[in-house]
Amino acid sequence: MTVGIIGLGLIGGSMAVDLKRRGFAGTVLGVEADPVNAEAAAKMKLADEIVGYEECVDRSDIIVVAVPVGTAVRMVCDILDRFRDTEAKDKTVIDVCSTKEQIITATHYHPCRGQFVSTHPMAGTEYSGPWAAMPNLFDGRACIFANVEESSPKARKTIEDMYDVLNMRPIYMNASSHDLHTAYVSHISHVTSFALALTVLDKEKDEKHIFDLASGGFSSTVRLAKSNADMWVPILMQNHDNVLHVIDTYIEKMKLFRDAIADFDEDRVRGLINDANRIKKIIR
Amino acid sequence: MTVGIIGLGLIGGSMAVDLKRRGFAGTVLGVEADPVNAEAAAKMKLADEIVGYEECVDRSDIIVVAVPVGTAVRMVCDILDRFRDTEAKDKTVIDVCSTKEQIITATHYHPCRGQFVSTHPMAGTEYSGPWAAMPNLFDGRACIFANVEESSPKARKTIEDMYDVLNMRPIYMNASSHDLHTAYVSHISHVTSFALALTVLDKEKDEKHIFDLASGGFSSTVRLAKSNADMWVPILMQNHDNVLHVIDTYIEKMKLFRDAIADFDEDRVRGLINDANRIKKIIR
Repeated sequence: MTVGIIGLGLIGGSMAVDLKRRGFAGTVLGVEADPVNAEAAAKMKLADEIVGYEECVDRSDIIVVAVPVGTAVRMVCDILDRFRDTEAKDKTVIDVCSTKEQIITATHYHPCRGQFVSTHPMAGTEYSGPWAAMPNLFDGRACIFANVEESSPKARKTIEDMYDVLNMRPIYMNASSHDLHTAYVSHISHVTSFALALTVLDKEKDEKHIFDLASGGFSSTVRLAKSNADMWVPILMQNHDNVLHVIDTYIEKMKLFRDAIADFDEDRVRGLINDANRIKKIIR
Repeated sequence: MTVGIIGLGLIGGSMAVDLKRRGFAGTVLGVEADPVNAEAAAKMKLADEIVGYEECVDRSDIIVVAVPVGTAVRMVCDILDRFRDTEAKDKTVIDVCSTKEQIITATHYHPCRGQFVSTHPMAGTEYSGPWAAMPNLFDGRACIFANVEESSPKARKTIEDMYDVLNMRPIYMNASSHDLHTAYVSHISHVTSFALALTVLDKEKDEKHIFDLASGGFSSTVRLAKSNADMWVPILMQNHDNVLHVIDTYIEKMKLFRDAIADFDEDRVRGLINDANRIKKIIR
Protein backbone atom coordinates (compact mmCIF):
# COMPACT_ATOMS: atom_id res chain seq x y z
CA MET A 1 0.00 0.00 0.00
CA THR A 2 1.29 3.45 -0.91
CA VAL A 3 0.11 6.31 1.30
CA GLY A 4 0.60 9.85 0.06
CA ILE A 5 0.55 12.58 2.66
CA ILE A 6 0.09 16.17 1.58
CA GLY A 7 1.40 18.43 4.31
CA LEU A 8 4.11 16.91 6.52
CA GLY A 9 3.34 18.96 9.60
CA LEU A 10 2.32 17.83 13.07
CA ILE A 11 -0.57 15.65 11.90
CA GLY A 12 0.65 14.57 8.47
CA GLY A 13 4.21 13.99 9.61
CA SER A 14 3.13 11.98 12.66
CA MET A 15 0.85 9.83 10.50
CA ALA A 16 3.68 9.25 8.04
CA VAL A 17 5.95 7.99 10.82
CA ASP A 18 3.50 5.55 12.40
CA LEU A 19 1.88 4.24 9.20
CA LYS A 20 5.32 3.30 7.90
CA ARG A 21 6.74 2.03 11.18
CA ARG A 22 3.69 -0.13 11.89
CA GLY A 23 3.70 -1.66 8.42
CA PHE A 24 0.41 -0.24 7.12
CA ALA A 25 2.20 1.71 4.38
CA GLY A 26 4.85 -0.03 2.26
CA THR A 27 5.74 3.37 0.85
CA VAL A 28 4.96 6.83 2.20
CA LEU A 29 5.08 9.68 -0.30
CA GLY A 30 5.17 13.18 1.13
CA VAL A 31 4.23 16.51 -0.40
CA GLU A 32 5.38 19.71 1.25
CA ALA A 33 4.77 23.09 -0.37
CA ASP A 34 7.11 25.04 1.89
CA PRO A 35 10.70 24.46 0.69
CA VAL A 36 12.27 24.76 4.15
CA ASN A 37 9.75 22.33 5.63
CA ALA A 38 10.27 19.99 2.67
CA GLU A 39 14.02 19.87 3.29
CA ALA A 40 13.50 19.34 7.01
CA ALA A 41 10.97 16.55 6.38
CA ALA A 42 13.40 14.89 3.96
CA LYS A 43 16.25 15.20 6.44
CA MET A 44 14.12 13.70 9.21
CA LYS A 45 13.00 10.96 6.80
CA LEU A 46 9.33 11.52 7.62
CA ALA A 47 8.46 10.05 4.20
CA ASP A 48 10.23 7.65 1.84
CA GLU A 49 10.15 10.25 -0.91
CA ILE A 50 9.22 13.90 -1.14
CA VAL A 51 7.33 14.27 -4.43
CA GLY A 52 5.16 16.80 -6.21
CA TYR A 53 1.42 17.02 -5.67
CA GLU A 54 0.41 15.39 -8.97
CA GLU A 55 2.87 12.55 -8.64
CA CYS A 56 1.60 11.92 -5.11
CA VAL A 57 -2.01 11.70 -6.29
CA ASP A 58 -1.02 9.47 -9.21
CA ARG A 59 1.04 7.00 -7.22
CA SER A 60 -0.82 6.73 -3.89
CA ASP A 61 -3.59 4.33 -2.91
CA ILE A 62 -4.60 6.56 -0.02
CA ILE A 63 -4.08 10.32 -0.13
CA VAL A 64 -4.13 12.14 3.19
CA VAL A 65 -4.77 15.88 2.86
CA ALA A 66 -3.19 17.37 5.99
CA VAL A 67 -3.14 21.09 5.22
CA PRO A 68 -5.06 24.00 6.84
CA VAL A 69 -8.82 23.77 6.45
CA GLY A 70 -9.35 26.44 3.78
CA THR A 71 -6.78 24.89 1.43
CA ALA A 72 -8.00 21.39 2.23
CA VAL A 73 -11.50 22.03 0.87
CA ARG A 74 -10.14 23.08 -2.53
CA MET A 75 -7.56 20.32 -2.60
CA VAL A 76 -9.93 17.46 -1.79
CA CYS A 77 -12.26 18.63 -4.58
CA ASP A 78 -9.34 18.81 -7.00
CA ILE A 79 -8.18 15.31 -6.07
CA LEU A 80 -11.70 13.91 -6.56
CA ASP A 81 -11.70 15.58 -10.02
CA ARG A 82 -8.43 13.81 -10.82
CA PHE A 83 -9.88 10.48 -9.62
CA ARG A 84 -12.72 10.93 -12.13
CA ASP A 85 -10.47 11.99 -15.01
CA THR A 86 -8.06 9.12 -14.56
CA GLU A 87 -10.71 6.53 -13.67
CA ALA A 88 -8.84 5.86 -10.44
CA LYS A 89 -11.65 3.90 -8.83
CA ASP A 90 -9.58 2.23 -6.13
CA LYS A 91 -8.00 5.31 -4.62
CA THR A 92 -9.23 6.97 -1.46
CA VAL A 93 -8.68 10.53 -0.28
CA ILE A 94 -9.16 11.72 3.28
CA ASP A 95 -8.95 15.04 5.06
CA VAL A 96 -8.00 15.53 8.72
CA CYS A 97 -9.59 18.96 9.20
CA SER A 98 -10.78 20.40 12.51
CA THR A 99 -13.96 21.77 10.88
CA LYS A 100 -16.19 19.58 8.77
CA GLU A 101 -19.28 21.34 7.45
CA GLN A 102 -17.66 23.22 4.61
CA ILE A 103 -15.70 20.27 3.23
CA ILE A 104 -18.73 17.96 3.50
CA THR A 105 -20.92 20.49 1.68
CA ALA A 106 -18.32 21.18 -1.02
CA THR A 107 -17.89 17.50 -1.88
CA HIS A 108 -21.49 16.37 -1.45
CA TYR A 109 -22.48 16.13 -5.11
CA HIS A 110 -19.12 15.11 -6.50
CA PRO A 111 -19.46 11.99 -8.67
CA CYS A 112 -16.48 10.45 -6.85
CA ARG A 113 -17.76 11.42 -3.36
CA GLY A 114 -17.67 7.74 -2.32
CA GLN A 115 -13.88 7.76 -2.54
CA PHE A 116 -13.60 10.54 0.03
CA VAL A 117 -13.62 9.88 3.79
CA SER A 118 -13.76 12.91 6.05
CA THR A 119 -11.98 12.44 9.37
CA HIS A 120 -10.76 14.44 12.32
CA PRO A 121 -8.15 12.70 14.43
CA MET A 122 -8.47 14.40 17.84
CA ALA A 123 -4.80 14.55 18.67
CA GLY A 124 -2.17 17.22 18.54
CA THR A 125 0.14 19.51 20.39
CA GLU A 126 0.58 23.27 20.25
CA TYR A 127 3.54 22.86 17.89
CA SER A 128 3.49 22.75 14.13
CA GLY A 129 5.69 21.92 11.16
CA PRO A 130 7.67 18.75 10.43
CA TRP A 131 9.66 19.35 13.64
CA ALA A 132 6.47 18.75 15.60
CA ALA A 133 5.83 15.30 14.10
CA MET A 134 6.19 12.48 16.60
CA PRO A 135 5.54 8.76 16.89
CA ASN A 136 2.52 7.53 18.88
CA LEU A 137 0.71 10.87 18.69
CA PHE A 138 -2.64 9.25 17.95
CA ASP A 139 -2.55 6.25 20.29
CA GLY A 140 -5.71 5.92 22.36
CA ARG A 141 -7.31 9.14 21.10
CA ALA A 142 -10.65 9.54 19.32
CA CYS A 143 -10.97 9.93 15.55
CA ILE A 144 -14.18 11.43 14.25
CA PHE A 145 -15.62 10.23 10.95
CA ALA A 146 -18.00 12.84 9.54
CA ASN A 147 -20.94 11.79 7.36
CA VAL A 148 -19.36 8.42 6.82
CA GLU A 149 -22.50 7.14 5.03
CA GLU A 150 -21.49 9.29 2.04
CA SER A 151 -18.30 7.28 1.61
CA SER A 152 -18.29 3.94 -0.18
CA PRO A 153 -18.13 0.92 2.13
CA LYS A 154 -14.76 0.02 0.63
CA ALA A 155 -13.24 3.47 1.17
CA ARG A 156 -14.65 3.59 4.67
CA LYS A 157 -13.21 0.17 5.53
CA THR A 158 -9.77 1.15 4.18
CA ILE A 159 -9.64 4.26 6.33
CA GLU A 160 -11.07 2.58 9.43
CA ASP A 161 -8.28 0.02 9.08
CA MET A 162 -5.75 2.80 8.75
CA TYR A 163 -6.91 4.55 11.93
CA ASP A 164 -7.02 1.21 13.69
CA VAL A 165 -3.30 0.89 13.01
CA LEU A 166 -2.90 4.33 14.59
CA ASN A 167 -4.78 2.99 17.65
CA MET A 168 -7.57 5.52 17.37
CA ARG A 169 -11.16 5.01 18.59
CA PRO A 170 -13.62 5.79 15.77
CA ILE A 171 -16.56 8.09 16.57
CA TYR A 172 -19.25 8.70 13.95
CA MET A 173 -20.93 12.08 13.74
CA ASN A 174 -22.50 14.32 11.15
CA ALA A 175 -20.55 17.39 10.13
CA SER A 176 -22.76 19.95 11.81
CA SER A 177 -22.71 18.11 15.15
CA HIS A 178 -18.97 17.82 14.85
CA ASP A 179 -18.52 21.54 14.32
CA LEU A 180 -20.87 22.39 17.17
CA HIS A 181 -19.25 20.07 19.68
CA THR A 182 -15.66 20.87 18.72
CA ALA A 183 -16.45 24.59 19.07
CA TYR A 184 -17.77 23.87 22.57
CA VAL A 185 -14.93 21.67 23.66
CA SER A 186 -11.86 22.34 21.55
CA HIS A 187 -12.01 25.65 19.67
CA ILE A 188 -13.01 27.72 22.70
CA SER A 189 -9.98 26.42 24.64
CA HIS A 190 -7.72 27.88 22.00
CA VAL A 191 -9.45 31.25 22.04
CA THR A 192 -9.31 31.46 25.86
CA SER A 193 -5.66 30.58 25.77
CA PHE A 194 -4.84 33.20 23.11
CA ALA A 195 -6.73 35.80 25.17
CA LEU A 196 -4.84 34.77 28.31
CA ALA A 197 -1.50 35.20 26.57
CA LEU A 198 -2.53 38.62 25.27
CA THR A 199 -3.65 39.65 28.76
CA VAL A 200 -0.49 38.55 30.49
CA LEU A 201 1.75 40.06 27.81
CA ASP A 202 -0.22 43.28 28.08
CA LYS A 203 -0.32 43.59 31.88
CA GLU A 204 3.05 42.10 32.71
CA LYS A 205 5.64 44.14 30.88
CA ASP A 206 8.55 42.40 32.57
CA GLU A 207 9.11 39.07 30.84
CA LYS A 208 11.29 37.89 33.68
CA HIS A 209 8.32 38.11 36.03
CA ILE A 210 6.26 35.97 33.68
CA PHE A 211 9.03 33.42 33.52
CA ASP A 212 9.61 33.43 37.29
CA LEU A 213 5.97 33.39 38.35
CA ALA A 214 4.72 30.93 35.78
CA SER A 215 4.16 27.89 37.92
CA GLY A 216 2.82 24.83 36.17
CA GLY A 217 -0.67 26.31 36.28
CA PHE A 218 -0.06 29.24 33.98
CA SER A 219 2.09 27.20 31.61
CA SER A 220 -0.60 24.62 31.01
CA THR A 221 -3.40 27.16 30.67
CA VAL A 222 -1.46 29.27 28.19
CA ARG A 223 0.02 26.33 26.27
CA LEU A 224 -2.43 26.48 23.37
CA ALA A 225 -1.59 30.16 22.83
CA LYS A 226 1.51 28.92 21.04
CA SER A 227 -0.72 27.47 18.32
CA ASN A 228 -0.21 28.52 14.76
CA ALA A 229 -2.27 31.24 13.06
CA ASP A 230 -2.15 29.45 9.68
CA MET A 231 -4.07 26.59 11.21
CA TRP A 232 -6.36 28.50 13.54
CA VAL A 233 -7.53 31.48 11.48
CA PRO A 234 -9.35 29.24 8.95
CA ILE A 235 -10.81 27.05 11.72
CA LEU A 236 -12.27 30.04 13.55
CA MET A 237 -13.58 31.47 10.28
CA GLN A 238 -15.13 28.23 9.05
CA ASN A 239 -16.71 27.51 12.42
CA HIS A 240 -17.69 31.14 12.85
CA ASP A 241 -21.24 30.82 14.20
CA ASN A 242 -20.56 28.08 16.74
CA VAL A 243 -17.37 29.73 17.93
CA LEU A 244 -19.05 33.11 18.42
CA HIS A 245 -21.85 31.49 20.33
CA VAL A 246 -19.52 29.73 22.74
CA ILE A 247 -17.31 32.83 23.15
CA ASP A 248 -20.41 34.79 24.18
CA THR A 249 -21.29 32.17 26.78
CA TYR A 250 -17.72 32.23 27.98
CA ILE A 251 -17.72 36.01 28.41
CA GLU A 252 -20.95 35.68 30.43
CA LYS A 253 -19.34 33.12 32.74
CA MET A 254 -16.30 35.34 33.14
CA LYS A 255 -18.57 38.21 34.11
CA LEU A 256 -20.30 36.06 36.73
CA PHE A 257 -16.89 35.59 38.33
CA ARG A 258 -16.01 39.22 37.90
CA ASP A 259 -19.19 40.45 39.56
CA ALA A 260 -19.07 37.96 42.42
CA ILE A 261 -15.48 39.00 43.17
CA ALA A 262 -16.35 42.71 42.79
CA ASP A 263 -19.17 42.24 45.31
CA PHE A 264 -16.82 40.45 47.74
CA ASP A 265 -19.42 37.69 47.67
CA GLU A 266 -17.50 34.67 48.91
CA ASP A 267 -20.50 32.37 48.68
CA ARG A 268 -21.10 33.17 45.03
CA VAL A 269 -17.43 32.71 44.15
CA ARG A 270 -17.42 29.43 46.06
CA GLY A 271 -20.58 28.31 44.23
CA LEU A 272 -19.01 29.07 40.84
CA ILE A 273 -15.81 27.22 41.70
CA ASN A 274 -17.73 24.22 43.03
CA ASP A 275 -19.75 24.21 39.84
CA ALA A 276 -16.61 24.36 37.70
CA ASN A 277 -15.12 21.51 39.75
CA ARG A 278 -17.69 19.16 38.17
CA ILE A 279 -15.28 18.90 35.25
CA LYS A 280 -13.19 16.62 37.50
CA LYS A 281 -15.65 13.82 37.00
CA ILE A 282 -15.28 14.01 33.23
CA ILE A 283 -11.63 14.90 32.62
CA ARG A 284 -9.08 12.97 34.62
CA MET B 1 16.00 20.24 63.63
CA THR B 2 12.29 19.72 64.25
CA VAL B 3 9.99 21.10 61.57
CA GLY B 4 6.29 21.46 62.40
CA ILE B 5 3.92 21.66 59.47
CA ILE B 6 0.41 22.91 60.02
CA GLY B 7 -1.77 21.68 57.19
CA LEU B 8 -0.60 18.47 55.51
CA GLY B 9 -2.11 19.16 52.12
CA LEU B 10 -0.44 19.48 48.74
CA ILE B 11 2.14 22.07 49.86
CA GLY B 12 2.56 21.12 53.51
CA GLY B 13 2.56 17.39 52.85
CA SER B 14 5.06 17.66 50.00
CA MET B 15 7.37 19.78 52.14
CA ALA B 16 7.12 17.25 54.95
CA VAL B 17 8.18 14.44 52.64
CA ASP B 18 11.23 16.16 51.12
CA LEU B 19 12.48 17.92 54.26
CA LYS B 20 12.58 14.58 56.08
CA ARG B 21 13.86 12.51 53.14
CA ARG B 22 16.65 14.98 52.38
CA GLY B 23 17.78 15.16 56.01
CA PHE B 24 16.92 18.79 56.72
CA ALA B 25 14.38 17.80 59.38
CA GLY B 26 15.31 15.19 61.97
CA THR B 27 11.68 15.14 63.02
CA VAL B 28 8.60 16.35 61.18
CA LEU B 29 5.54 17.10 63.28
CA GLY B 30 2.27 17.45 61.41
CA VAL B 31 -0.95 19.21 62.39
CA GLU B 32 -4.11 18.46 60.47
CA ALA B 33 -7.46 19.90 61.57
CA ASP B 34 -9.58 17.66 59.37
CA PRO B 35 -9.87 14.22 61.03
CA VAL B 36 -10.10 12.28 57.74
CA ASN B 37 -7.08 14.10 56.32
CA ALA B 38 -5.22 13.56 59.61
CA GLU B 39 -5.78 9.81 59.42
CA ALA B 40 -4.77 9.70 55.79
CA ALA B 41 -1.62 11.74 56.47
CA ALA B 42 -0.75 9.40 59.35
CA LYS B 43 -1.34 6.33 57.21
CA MET B 44 0.83 7.76 54.41
CA LYS B 45 3.46 8.68 57.03
CA LEU B 46 3.75 12.24 55.73
CA ALA B 47 4.98 13.27 59.19
CA ASP B 48 6.72 11.43 62.01
CA GLU B 49 3.91 12.35 64.39
CA ILE B 50 0.52 13.97 64.04
CA VAL B 51 0.19 16.32 66.99
CA GLY B 52 -2.03 19.16 68.21
CA TYR B 53 -1.45 22.77 67.22
CA GLU B 54 0.01 23.90 70.54
CA GLU B 55 2.31 20.93 70.86
CA CYS B 56 3.54 21.56 67.35
CA VAL B 57 4.36 25.20 68.12
CA ASP B 58 6.04 24.23 71.40
CA ARG B 59 8.24 21.49 70.00
CA SER B 60 9.22 22.79 66.53
CA ASP B 61 12.21 24.91 65.55
CA ILE B 62 10.55 25.91 62.30
CA ILE B 63 6.77 26.11 61.98
CA VAL B 64 5.34 26.05 58.47
CA VAL B 65 1.80 27.41 58.24
CA ALA B 66 0.35 25.72 55.15
CA VAL B 67 -3.37 26.46 55.44
CA PRO B 68 -5.64 28.62 53.24
CA VAL B 69 -4.72 32.30 53.24
CA GLY B 70 -7.50 33.67 55.48
CA THR B 71 -6.73 31.22 58.27
CA ALA B 72 -3.00 31.65 57.78
CA VAL B 73 -3.05 35.36 58.64
CA ARG B 74 -4.70 34.70 62.02
CA MET B 75 -2.54 31.68 62.73
CA VAL B 76 0.81 33.36 62.04
CA CYS B 77 -0.17 36.22 64.38
CA ASP B 78 -1.18 33.74 67.06
CA ILE B 79 2.10 31.84 66.71
CA LEU B 80 4.10 35.08 67.00
CA ASP B 81 2.14 35.86 70.19
CA ARG B 82 3.12 32.47 71.57
CA PHE B 83 6.77 33.10 70.67
CA ARG B 84 6.64 36.28 72.75
CA ASP B 85 4.87 34.68 75.70
CA THR B 86 7.24 31.73 75.92
CA GLU B 87 10.36 33.70 75.05
CA ALA B 88 10.99 31.34 72.19
CA LYS B 89 13.62 33.49 70.51
CA ASP B 90 15.11 30.80 68.31
CA LYS B 91 11.97 29.62 66.61
CA THR B 92 10.90 30.69 63.14
CA VAL B 93 7.45 30.65 61.59
CA ILE B 94 6.76 30.86 57.86
CA ASP B 95 3.67 31.02 55.71
CA VAL B 96 3.38 29.70 52.15
CA CYS B 97 0.41 31.79 51.05
CA SER B 98 -0.43 32.77 47.48
CA THR B 99 -1.27 36.34 48.54
CA LYS B 100 1.08 38.38 50.65
CA GLU B 101 -0.14 41.91 51.37
CA GLN B 102 -2.60 41.06 54.12
CA ILE B 103 -0.27 38.80 56.09
CA ILE B 104 2.62 41.28 55.77
CA THR B 105 0.39 44.14 56.99
CA ALA B 106 -1.08 42.11 59.86
CA THR B 107 2.33 41.12 61.23
CA HIS B 108 4.20 44.36 60.53
CA TYR B 109 4.24 45.80 64.06
CA HIS B 110 4.42 42.52 65.93
CA PRO B 111 7.32 42.56 68.43
CA CYS B 112 8.41 39.14 67.17
CA ARG B 113 8.09 40.08 63.47
CA GLY B 114 11.75 39.19 62.92
CA GLN B 115 10.95 35.53 63.58
CA PHE B 116 8.47 35.41 60.70
CA VAL B 117 9.51 34.78 57.08
CA SER B 118 6.80 35.18 54.47
CA THR B 119 7.27 32.90 51.46
CA HIS B 120 5.38 31.68 48.43
CA PRO B 121 6.79 28.54 46.87
CA MET B 122 5.55 28.69 43.25
CA ALA B 123 4.76 25.03 42.84
CA GLY B 124 1.63 22.99 42.92
CA THR B 125 -0.88 20.91 41.05
CA GLU B 126 -4.65 21.19 40.76
CA TYR B 127 -5.09 18.57 43.47
CA SER B 128 -5.37 19.10 47.19
CA GLY B 129 -5.30 17.23 50.47
CA PRO B 130 -2.69 14.80 51.82
CA TRP B 131 -3.33 12.54 48.79
CA ALA B 132 -1.90 15.27 46.58
CA ALA B 133 1.42 15.47 48.44
CA MET B 134 4.37 14.24 46.39
CA PRO B 135 8.15 14.16 46.51
CA ASN B 136 10.17 16.60 44.36
CA LEU B 137 7.24 19.00 43.92
CA PHE B 138 9.41 22.07 44.47
CA ASP B 139 12.56 21.10 42.58
CA GLY B 140 13.73 23.83 40.22
CA ARG B 141 10.78 26.16 40.86
CA ALA B 142 10.87 29.72 42.18
CA CYS B 143 10.15 30.62 45.81
CA ILE B 144 9.19 34.20 46.54
CA PHE B 145 10.32 35.82 49.77
CA ALA B 146 8.09 38.80 50.56
CA ASN B 147 9.48 41.80 52.50
CA VAL B 148 12.40 39.70 53.65
CA GLU B 149 14.08 42.76 55.22
CA GLU B 150 11.46 42.59 58.01
CA SER B 151 12.74 39.16 59.05
CA SER B 152 15.81 38.79 61.25
CA PRO B 153 18.97 37.76 59.39
CA LYS B 154 19.00 34.52 61.36
CA ALA B 155 15.41 33.60 60.55
CA ARG B 156 15.95 34.51 56.92
CA LYS B 157 19.08 32.36 56.69
CA THR B 158 17.28 29.39 58.28
CA ILE B 159 14.44 29.54 55.78
CA GLU B 160 16.71 30.19 52.79
CA ASP B 161 18.60 27.06 53.76
CA MET B 162 15.34 25.15 54.01
CA TYR B 163 14.21 26.17 50.53
CA ASP B 164 17.67 25.43 49.22
CA VAL B 165 17.17 21.84 50.36
CA LEU B 166 13.90 21.87 48.40
CA ASN B 167 15.90 23.02 45.34
CA MET B 168 13.98 26.25 44.97
CA ARG B 169 15.30 29.48 43.42
CA PRO B 170 14.75 32.39 45.83
CA ILE B 171 13.18 35.58 44.43
CA TYR B 172 12.85 38.66 46.62
CA MET B 173 9.87 40.95 46.21
CA ASN B 174 7.72 43.24 48.28
CA ALA B 175 4.22 42.05 49.11
CA SER B 176 2.34 44.46 46.89
CA SER B 177 4.47 43.61 43.84
CA HIS B 178 3.97 39.96 44.59
CA ASP B 179 0.21 40.28 44.69
CA LEU B 180 0.14 42.33 41.51
CA HIS B 181 2.35 39.98 39.52
CA THR B 182 0.74 36.77 40.76
CA ALA B 183 -2.68 38.19 39.84
CA TYR B 184 -1.34 38.87 36.34
CA VAL B 185 0.35 35.54 35.87
CA SER B 186 -1.16 32.96 38.21
CA HIS B 187 -4.54 33.99 39.60
CA ILE B 188 -6.03 34.95 36.23
CA SER B 189 -5.19 31.50 34.83
CA HIS B 190 -7.34 29.91 37.49
CA VAL B 191 -10.27 32.21 36.81
CA THR B 192 -10.09 31.62 33.04
CA SER B 193 -9.97 27.90 33.64
CA PHE B 194 -12.97 27.95 36.01
CA ALA B 195 -14.91 29.99 33.43
CA LEU B 196 -13.94 27.55 30.67
CA ALA B 197 -15.21 24.59 32.69
CA LEU B 198 -18.48 26.41 33.41
CA THR B 199 -18.88 27.24 29.72
CA VAL B 200 -18.26 23.73 28.49
CA LEU B 201 -20.47 22.18 31.17
CA ASP B 202 -23.19 24.67 30.27
CA LYS B 203 -23.05 24.32 26.47
CA GLU B 204 -22.19 20.65 26.21
CA LYS B 205 -24.89 18.75 28.02
CA ASP B 206 -23.59 15.37 26.89
CA GLU B 207 -20.65 14.45 29.10
CA LYS B 208 -19.64 11.72 26.70
CA HIS B 209 -18.99 14.35 24.02
CA ILE B 210 -16.76 16.27 26.40
CA PHE B 211 -14.86 13.12 27.19
CA ASP B 212 -14.55 12.07 23.53
CA LEU B 213 -13.68 15.47 22.11
CA ALA B 214 -11.32 16.58 24.85
CA SER B 215 -8.01 16.26 23.09
CA GLY B 216 -4.93 17.22 25.06
CA GLY B 217 -5.66 20.88 24.39
CA PHE B 218 -8.89 21.13 26.33
CA SER B 219 -7.60 18.96 29.17
CA SER B 220 -4.61 21.17 29.81
CA THR B 221 -6.55 24.42 29.50
CA VAL B 222 -9.27 23.27 31.88
CA ARG B 223 -6.92 21.52 34.32
CA LEU B 224 -6.87 24.32 36.89
CA ALA B 225 -10.68 24.26 37.05
CA LYS B 226 -10.29 21.24 39.31
CA SER B 227 -8.72 23.51 41.93
CA ASN B 228 -10.22 23.68 45.35
CA ALA B 229 -12.64 26.41 46.48
CA ASP B 230 -11.28 26.42 50.05
CA MET B 231 -7.94 27.54 48.69
CA TRP B 232 -9.11 29.84 45.90
CA VAL B 233 -11.98 31.81 47.42
CA PRO B 234 -9.70 33.49 49.99
CA ILE B 235 -6.98 34.14 47.39
CA LEU B 236 -9.41 35.86 45.04
CA MET B 237 -10.89 37.85 47.92
CA GLN B 238 -7.56 38.92 49.38
CA ASN B 239 -6.18 39.88 45.99
CA HIS B 240 -9.47 41.44 44.98
CA ASP B 241 -8.31 44.67 43.29
CA ASN B 242 -5.50 43.16 41.23
CA VAL B 243 -7.63 40.19 40.20
CA LEU B 244 -10.54 42.39 39.09
CA HIS B 245 -8.19 44.57 37.11
CA VAL B 246 -6.69 41.64 35.22
CA ILE B 247 -10.12 40.01 34.65
CA ASP B 248 -11.29 43.25 33.06
CA THR B 249 -8.29 43.30 30.74
CA TYR B 250 -8.93 39.66 29.94
CA ILE B 251 -12.56 40.31 29.01
CA GLU B 252 -11.38 43.12 26.73
CA LYS B 253 -8.97 40.78 24.95
CA MET B 254 -11.69 38.18 24.59
CA LYS B 255 -13.93 40.80 23.02
CA LEU B 256 -11.20 41.74 20.53
CA PHE B 257 -11.25 38.13 19.38
CA ARG B 258 -15.01 38.01 19.42
CA ASP B 259 -15.38 41.11 17.30
CA ALA B 260 -12.67 40.17 14.82
CA ILE B 261 -14.33 36.76 14.32
CA ALA B 262 -17.80 38.34 14.12
CA ASP B 263 -16.51 40.68 11.40
CA PHE B 264 -14.97 37.74 9.48
CA ASP B 265 -11.78 39.77 9.66
CA GLU B 266 -9.07 37.18 9.03
CA ASP B 267 -6.26 39.71 9.23
CA ARG B 268 -7.33 40.93 12.67
CA VAL B 269 -7.70 37.37 13.98
CA ARG B 270 -4.29 36.51 12.54
CA GLY B 271 -2.78 39.61 14.14
CA LEU B 272 -4.21 38.66 17.55
CA ILE B 273 -2.94 35.09 17.29
CA ASN B 274 0.51 36.22 16.18
CA ASP B 275 0.58 38.61 19.10
CA ALA B 276 -0.43 35.85 21.52
CA ASN B 277 2.27 33.60 20.05
CA ARG B 278 4.91 35.89 21.62
CA ILE B 279 4.33 33.87 24.80
CA LYS B 280 6.38 31.10 23.09
CA LYS B 281 9.56 33.04 23.70
CA ILE B 282 8.88 33.21 27.43
CA ILE B 283 7.22 29.91 28.32
CA ARG B 284 8.79 26.79 26.87
